[in-house]
Amino acid sequence: MTSLDEILAAARKMCEPDEEERRLISKVADTILNRARSVIKEKKVDAEAVLGGSYAKDTWLKGECDIDLFVKFQPDLKMDEFKQIGMDLAKEILKGYETLVRYAEHPYLEGFVDGVRVNIVPCFNVKPRHWISAADRSPYHTEYVKRHLKEELKSEVRLLKKFIKARGVYGAEVKTRGFSGYVCEVLILKYGSFIRTLEAFSNLERGAVINLGEVPADVKLRFQSPIIILDPVDSERNLGAAISEESLATFISSARSFLQNPSLKYFERYDGESFIRLLEPMADNLILLLFAHERRSPDILWGQLHKTSEAIERQMKIRGFEVLRVFEASSEEAEGAILLLLESLTLPKYMVKVGPDVYRKADALRFVQKNLNRSTLIWFSKDGRIVSLQERVERNAVNVLQSLLSNPTELGVAEGLREALKSSTTILTGREALKAVESKGWLRREVQRLVSTKYITFDPD
Amino acid sequence: MTSLDEILAAARKMCEPDEEERRLISKVADTILNRARSVIKEKKVDAEAVLGGSYAKDTWLKGECDIDLFVKFQPDLKMDEFKQIGMDLAKEILKGYETLVRYAEHPYLEGFVDGVRVNIVPCFNVKPRHWISAADRSPYHTEYVKRHLKEELKSEVRLLKKFIKARGVYGAEVKTRGFSGYVCEVLILKYGSFIRTLEAFSNLERGAVINLGEVPADVKLRFQSPIIILDPVDSERNLGAAISEESLATFISSARSFLQNPSLKYFERYDGESFIRLLEPMADNLILLLFAHERRSPDILWGQLHKTSEAIERQMKIRGFEVLRVFEASSEEAEGAILLLLESLTLPKYMVKVGPDVYRKADALRFVQKNLNRSTLIWFSKDGRIVSLQERVERNAVNVLQSLLSNPTELGVAEGLREALKSSTTILTGREALKAVESKGWLRREVQRLVSTKYITFDPD
Repeated sequence: MTSLDEILAAARKMCEPDEEERRLISKVADTILNRARSVIKEKKVDAEAVLGGSYAKDTWLKGECDIDLFVKFQPDLKMDEFKQIGMDLAKEILKGYETLVRYAEHPYLEGFVDGVRVNIVPCFNVKPRHWISAADRSPYHTEYVKRHLKEELKSEVRLLKKFIKARGVYGAEVKTRGFSGYVCEVLILKYGSFIRTLEAFSNLERGAVINLGEVPADVKLRFQSPIIILDPVDSERNLGAAISEESLATFISSARSFLQNPSLKYFERYDGESFIRLLEPMADNLILLLFAHERRSPDILWGQLHKTSEAIERQMKIRGFEVLRVFEASSEEAEGAILLLLESLTLPKYMVKVGPDVYRKADALRFVQKNLNRSTLIWFSKDGRIVSLQERVERNAVNVLQSLLSNPTELGVAEGLREALKSSTTILTGREALKAVESKGWLRREVQRLVSTKYITFDPD
Repeated sequence: MTSLDEILAAARKMCEPDEEERRLISKVADTILNRARSVIKEKKVDAEAVLGGSYAKDTWLKGECDIDLFVKFQPDLKMDEFKQIGMDLAKEILKGYETLVRYAEHPYLEGFVDGVRVNIVPCFNVKPRHWISAADRSPYHTEYVKRHLKEELKSEVRLLKKFIKARGVYGAEVKTRGFSGYVCEVLILKYGSFIRTLEAFSNLERGAVINLGEVPADVKLRFQSPIIILDPVDSERNLGAAISEESLATFISSARSFLQNPSLKYFERYDGESFIRLLEPMADNLILLLFAHERRSPDILWGQLHKTSEAIERQMKIRGFEVLRVFEASSEEAEGAILLLLESLTLPKYMVKVGPDVYRKADALRFVQKNLNRSTLIWFSKDGRIVSLQERVERNAVNVLQSLLSNPTELGVAEGLREALKSSTTILTGREALKAVESKGWLRREVQRLVSTKYITFDPD
């Protein structure tokens, strides 16, 4: 058995960039910053270029450095112009490199410079809480962390990020609804070390408030989320709002497991049993919906996918199907999927419908009028409610899904995916579904992530 | 369409005994009363014989008259002697006739005199509310009805009894938990006619209190039952306590249906579709438990049967089976049965077990320790609870029942039936079960009663 200190030392080695990596990244960062400044000067734009993100804060994970360069514009610039000029500048800065336009709240440019991913992000140069675009806070976050995070705490941030990433709950984007890098930094500033952060979370109470400064008295009235984490540069912002109950629970449970039985495996992506081996015995109960969708900003897309899978789950439950698990996936390019694990793909022939009690005269009459002819048997339960035994009209899950998808408005799926689902969905079941999962990288990865964390998140010893 | 008056007139004809029947019954009653009085005199017992029941009150239904003769003993008689002397006297009174010892709270003697059933019931001659045995109230009930029920209301009582009987909810015994003859009389005294009684019940509110005299202020605190009907000869007694929610609902619903669309069929036992035709399509989901049991007082036996079927239903539900309906039957001699209609006799291979939320640290740990190795998959739900997907250990309802019955104490079945169930139960399913139901008169009647009342109790037009 390795001691906790040895495990943490080994984990640190996995996180800390080496000198060679630091040199390469620094060189790219300098190059880009210089290019940005000269382009701004040359084009006579009233803007300022600054480095941000985990590079600037020196908290990036070995082998995973992006360089974020913020171009800060004056707040009197109109939004249209801001977007236009911002992207023009970015393109000029990355001229000669491979680039890709990306969308968060507004467009930004991603490029690759000597193999390093560089994001050129336009934002406004405003005072705190006078934010115009969502990116305006980022330079303040960078400044705050650079000023407060002591040198010796940087590797604590890296350990925490690595741990959270290996559990699949790193990132505040809608897809994951997990812990952002900035949240990891705030947590280390708050608790002082990786281990103390895990200890705090392993004993977390529902609705906990985490803050670095003073807590506004009405904080619990203003924010409603499983955990409240106040942004130290803007106490009106709850960083916890982006974290789902599911991601939070996964982190809490993993923290408890790690503290009880520390192991290096908590810092590595799990590559144990293949999901195919895990899912094969339940193949008979699997349904895969595969569909095409147009490209859009990932946060919007994943929001639509979540909403859609929730709607499908709800509707299937209403129709009597026991949905054991449902989740969604996307290539983020052109294909999406919803995977349903049902207790059974067919329902029993008969069902009971429990009606109102006899004292609600009008309701009872309505129930009887509606159900009498459909009832094979009808009687009063021991507590005086009308019980109708009926043959099920539709017992086959695939048929039910087909009929639901033919009317996606009624189904309640996200508006942006309605037409896509209606016109392009292929429904696969059983081994056909598994084969399709195996053959599509994006889908295989997502399924692997969601089915194989058993002995990390939950293992208590 | 026949008018309400014509229907009621026809129904009255079905209820009213004719002169010939009256003559026969009177002759038997006089004979028995005279014999009782001379036996009492001859044996020098300090007792008094009086006629009671529906004969004495002139409210019996055509063709269904029993003669109840009460032998009232002095209250200082010890219970043992009361039972002994009471039965000795009764045997002497019915000497020469075919007799049978019956048990209610205490034994009484049933005999057949010229084809008329005669019950000789010992009781105590006490003042109201000083009751020693349960039968002591009966002579007071008889007196009360004879004094208050006007001649023209007797046929209203008969209509009500006939209506309630045809709906299968006549009788206060534990088997039926329905409306006794005395309750029917009290209702007619209260509402003044058959139709007004139906009107009152069709608009009944939950927890209604029905009384002839003044209502004690604390009546709702003292009695808890779906309906409270105060006994006019003893306001400390709630006649409604014997009426189940199910029987009450059946009467209320039938009353509404009849008032909406009066028909003579409400006064006749339904003999429409055979239960075999009704049950055949769902034969695959039927389980019949047949067992032998010793003879005992019917109220005790049916209490045990109810308790047993409730326990079996509860245990099957705990194990994941959807119990659509369960009911019990007995020959009241030596055989009993419990019939279960399940949604399916086999359960799906996988199930989910939802555990505590992550914040309940000790509970969460316990759940994980107990379920981790059984879990095929385990994850956190969207609301932060642990969800474990597991293969079901036992999926077959018959196997589950066999195992439950092998340990009837744990199952929670009535103590008096435990050994009988454990040692004598035969489990039949599907067509085998239906065949067994058809072949046993007591079971066939019970099933027929319970499955075929659809178009009477519920038909609104």
